[in-house]
Amino acid sequence: MTAASRTALLTDKYELTMVSAALRDGTADRPTTFEVFARRLPDGRRYGVLAGTGRLLEALADFTFDDAALETLADFLDPATQEYLQNFRFRGDIDGYSEGELYFPGSPVLSVTGTFAECCVLETLVLSIFNYDTAVASAAARMVSAAAGRPLIEMGSRRTHEQAAVAAARSAYLAGFTGTSNLAAHHRYGIPALGTSAHAFTMLHTTAEGGPDDWEQAAFRAQVAALGVGTTLLVDTYDVRCGVANAIAAAGTGLAAVRIDSGDLGVLARQVRDQLDGLGAVNTRIVVSGDLDEYAIAALRADPVDTYGVGTSVVTGSGAPTASMVYKLVEVDGIPVQKRSSRKESHGGRKAALRLTRPSGVITEEVVHPFGAAPPTDEPARVLTTPLVRNGEVLAGPDLSAARDLVAAGLHSLPWEGLALSSGKPAIPTRQGCG
Amino acid sequence: MTAASRTALLTDKYELTMVSAALRDGTADRPTTFEVFARRLPDGRRYGVLAGTGRLLEALADFTFDDAALETLADFLDPATQEYLQNFRFRGDIDGYSEGELYFPGSPVLSVTGTFAECCVLETLVLSIFNYDTAVASAAARMVSAAAGRPLIEMGSRRTHEQAAVAAARSAYLAGFTGTSNLAAHHRYGIPALGTSAHAFTMLHTTAEGGPDDWEQAAFRAQVAALGVGTTLLVDTYDVRCGVANAIAAAGTGLAAVRIDSGDLGVLARQVRDQLDGLGAVNTRIVVSGDLDEYAIAALRADPVDTYGVGTSVVTGSGAPTASMVYKLVEVDGIPVQKRSSRKESHGGRKAALRLTRPSGVITEEVVHPFGAAPPTDEPARVLTTPLVRNGEVLAGPDLSAARDLVAAGLHSLPWEGLALSSGKPAIPTRQGCG
Repeated sequence: MTAASRTALLTDKYELTMVSAALRDGTADRPTTFEVFARRLPDGRRYGVLAGTGRLLEALADFTFDDAALETLADFLDPATQEYLQNFRFRGDIDGYSEGELYFPGSPVLSVTGTFAECCVLETLVLSIFNYDTAVASAAARMVSAAAGRPLIEMGSRRTHEQAAVAAARSAYLAGFTGTSNLAAHHRYGIPALGTSAHAFTMLHTTAEGGPDDWEQAAFRAQVAALGVGTTLLVDTYDVRCGVANAIAAAGTGLAAVRIDSGDLGVLARQVRDQLDGLGAVNTRIVVSGDLDEYAIAALRADPVDTYGVGTSVVTGSGAPTASMVYKLVEVDGIPVQKRSSRKESHGGRKAALRLTRPSGVITEEVVHPFGAAPPTDEPARVLTTPLVRNGEVLAGPDLSAARDLVAAGLHSLPWEGLALSSGKPAIPTRQGCG
Repeated sequence: MTAASRTALLTDKYELTMVSAALRDGTADRPTTFEVFARRLPDGRRYGVLAGTGRLLEALADFTFDDAALETLADFLDPATQEYLQNFRFRGDIDGYSEGELYFPGSPVLSVTGTFAECCVLETLVLSIFNYDTAVASAAARMVSAAAGRPLIEMGSRRTHEQAAVAAARSAYLAGFTGTSNLAAHHRYGIPALGTSAHAFTMLHTTAEGGPDDWEQAAFRAQVAALGVGTTLLVDTYDVRCGVANAIAAAGTGLAAVRIDSGDLGVLARQVRDQLDGLGAVNTRIVVSGDLDEYAIAALRADPVDTYGVGTSVVTGSGAPTASMVYKLVEVDGIPVQKRSSRKESHGGRKAALRLTRPSGVITEEVVHPFGAAPPTDEPARVLTTPLVRNGEVLAGPDLSAARDLVAAGLHSLPWEGLALSSGKPAIPTRQGCG
């Protein structure tokens, strides 16, 4: 493990000062459970898609303090706390929803059980991962649903922090995107890497002689020579009609695809389809991109679009860049606890959850109950809470493919109004506290 | 350098396939300039604050492909391109605005000059860093302005990707925040680390006997014993009035600060101030937090608030999570180039900029001109474009303190309407293309 990959300093200072105070007064070893949940979904959203569990379980192994970190911490921590952190490794238990599971307000998506000190220090890392990854997956799932089976490519790396981009590609893929432009995500997670071409490549072929038509032809010929007719040619650098003609002239009617990145995408897609068909390129697909979000994707449903390229909106959670999850102490030494701050109520006690389902497979209610005491129910129910870590050991490695299947099944299980893109209430209610 | 710190795969696939095509047709070595600019500011914003330059210059040194990366790329790249990347190091020139400088629509904040291949591959990394860091710094500067001299603490790590959180802390500090809760940002950049306490620490002191008042008193005594009276006690876990009384009982009137994290912060701040003063704790400060953005910060101006803790809104750019900067080819072999896609016009040619200033110091106009040909002007003008990299060598290391001073000076130079939080036009116009 290298210093760069350690995750223990991705932490708020107050977690370590609280550990210091707790070590001093003897409460650091009290058995506790912290719970991760969202008090509400982003405005008008009807469901969320949990993501980040796999990344958290990987980051947990690297949550140790090296000498350089300890030296920094020595400026404000007492020796006893430094010594505690020097030997730190999380040795508790973690339970939670599987990655890719739907969630609703109050769903106990993760619970972390151990001593106060070892649970307390994980707060920031857990929330950073869950809040970002879940924000992206939740937005991406709406786009997948809006695309109604057409493939989506995640190409938003440039619109978010360079490492967040890798996580975004992972979350979008998990939610049902076909692939990503991001090479680090391909390298790290095996997500299909996809790509087309940029306006810069066409403009690179500018010369003092000739005009845009010549330059574009030269660029297209070069791209096809290097990458074959299976490539996608970007046809809107100068004029879309000329671009399409030049594309087929360069690649022939076997060209895999053309991309349109500007203008009224619906109008252009129809014109380009007609033009391609007229040229005999009936199998050449049309990729569209340019400020697409779930609404724009849905609005293009009737148009001859084959693939959507999505950037800004998916990596920024399409208006909800964080999932607003919180990490709250819910149990101390067997006693359920909760704070009473105004408008920030939480429910005490370690919990688990199950989801009631009609025989048709449509879900009807989320039932949150005390851990280890599932309520009797006549309806078919699926257990949502599963063990993830025991005594600090991760029970099963992340499985992106299983998470992807779970998202697909989750979207399929929503009541019909749950998939509406318009603002509304959560698709199913969450019942709290029945034992 | 470790594999984890390499930055070359933080890249979109199409950059490498374009390099492949350009190597094959002999255009990869053409001299080019790419320019970074924002076509517009986020809706209603009047200025932006450039951030990310320092991080980019650091990341540039790590932009190399190791064996593991090359192995992944071999799946889709030809041997000539693999060989090119194996030896890759950026050897071109970079010019740009200093980090912390204000920018407006069309400001050429960075220009990258070199061969097509070496400039092309930097696109995603440059934009990821600039778009995120600038989004945060631009939002943070509005908060600093709204706080009118009161200190702000960045505590939003948990609301964004764990590595983005470190960059966010840096950008917020650069824009004028006092410090951050993020320990990695403290460790890496020397930003002051600040922190208070969490509700969990108070609730940790729950026992089967007694009540909230006893538990809170025990928690406060433990915190003061460990951290001294210079600490900040969180008083809203159960009841704010009891919390304040317990805080002063535990720490005495020398207590540095109390924090309120919920409820109507203005009303509570006034009540708490009165209560503290009545107890003789006239120097105990009041820290407020809880969904604060620039508007909420401004709304508390008349209230006895001493410090703001800001989370979600600053790390997510307060409604604008990306700065929407683009990286566009503007010159090839001395020829200005631009695409003509609908609504995505760019201006050709390598450029630089200066800013006109009244004798009072108030700025009046941004003038963008061809590189190396500054226009004659009677008004005082400040040169904005400075050399950052020559032949691949970074000319000067990042200077966060200088960037911080530049933001402060920039805010001071805005015309009065430029600091209004309400929606409006850019504070000054940008004049393009005069030579």
